[in-house]
Amino acid sequence: MTWPTYEIKRHFLARMPKDQDILQTIEQFCTTENIHMATFSLIGAVSKVTYGYYDQRLKQYVSFTKEGSFEIVQCTGNVSLLNGSPFVHAHILVADHLGRTTGGHLFSETLVFAGEIELKELIGDIQKREQDVETGLNLWTK
Amino acid sequence: MTWPTYEIKRHFLARMPKDQDILQTIEQFCTTENIHMATFSLIGAVSKVTYGYYDQRLKQYVSFTKEGSFEIVQCTGNVSLLNGSPFVHAHILVADHLGRTTGGHLFSETLVFAGEIELKELIGDIQKREQDVETGLNLWTK
Amino acid sequence: MTWPTYEIKRHFLARMPKDQDILQTIEQFCTTENIHMATFSLIGAVSKVTYGYYDQRLKQYVSFTKEGSFEIVQCTGNVSLLNGSPFVHAHILVADHLGRTTGGHLFSETLVFAGEIELKELIGDIQKREQDVETGLNLWTK
Repeated sequence: MTWPTYEIKRHFLARMPKDQDILQTIEQFCTTENIHMATFSLIGAVSKVTYGYYDQRLKQYVSFTKEGSFEIVQCTGNVSLLNGSPFVHAHILVADHLGRTTGGHLFSETLVFAGEIELKELIGDIQKREQDVETGLNLWTK
Repeated sequence: MTWPTYEIKRHFLARMPKDQDILQTIEQFCTTENIHMATFSLIGAVSKVTYGYYDQRLKQYVSFTKEGSFEIVQCTGNVSLLNGSPFVHAHILVADHLGRTTGGHLFSETLVFAGEIELKELIGDIQKREQDVETGLNLWTK
Repeated sequence: MTWPTYEIKRHFLARMPKDQDILQTIEQFCTTENIHMATFSLIGAVSKVTYGYYDQRLKQYVSFTKEGSFEIVQCTGNVSLLNGSPFVHAHILVADHLGRTTGGHLFSETLVFAGEIELKELIGDIQKREQDVETGLNLWTK
């Protein structure tokens, strides 16, 4: 088992734009800035959230959308290439008005109310996603 | 959309002091060490926890305090300047004796039983918090 | 209060091997690569998960094992030395098919279905774990 290594190039910390989708915001930013690989972490709040669960037997995602105020307790993920474009893979955890938490795989239709992101651009042997027959997922090849 | 970039200066890993409040410990450490911006991640356990939920319509926090043993599944946050002083913004997730999780915005009166923190001091164009009329929160200006 | 500082040496991003235990995979990797200290973050899915809760009064862990598909919403931890060998301390949060989350201290018998890890090797004054009488835990000495 060998794991590829990377160097941090640019290290961003920024306020996320309000009422925008998390995945789209990050993918557009990476496309504009020519970032091919990154990791990020985000806290804040959303006014709408969509997360999913991967059924390992049926090899398909089920997703849930909830509208309303939720804290983003944590949203962590990475950026790598899928079909030559920056693609975000992230998981999100949200808390409701009683502190109860739910979460899973982050999907679009997750709208920022307020958010602070730390994103580290990585350079090196860029990870690419390819269809993995065994799991049915688009996985890194290394 | 342009996001400011930072360089890591000092990268700390340390044991958190027992029975001390998480927010106070980090803010005092940053004040003493003259740290104006940072990100951190923390795991461990608490003997008391206080977390909150921001009501986006009423523009106010509701908070909950629980005493007892809880695992800190994750506590992530950042340090930036509010009125010229280091200010911590963090979210926390705790688990109880059955593994059930709750969490939200971290408040004081959260006492460490045991904890390990990774804190990265950042230098660059320091983020400052200012009152944001639209959300009612103290947000970064960039 | 002084906290020790570290430098990042190698910064790995990799696909986790399927059907392997998370703790064993990381500890074996660190042993092979001669890594004595690190921090890491991991998202993905598991086919089996074991997490625990530390009873602060009885000074012992209770653990739970669940079989089935779960998303790893977040798994964060560190590597340091225990009795001269790389030892992983991590916490995990998983979500079920309805997005409901549970978690705690990560134990073995947690099998990866798919996973992406970011692991930063750290060099400096390596943290060592020693038995702490007050908490009953193996804690860092600094």
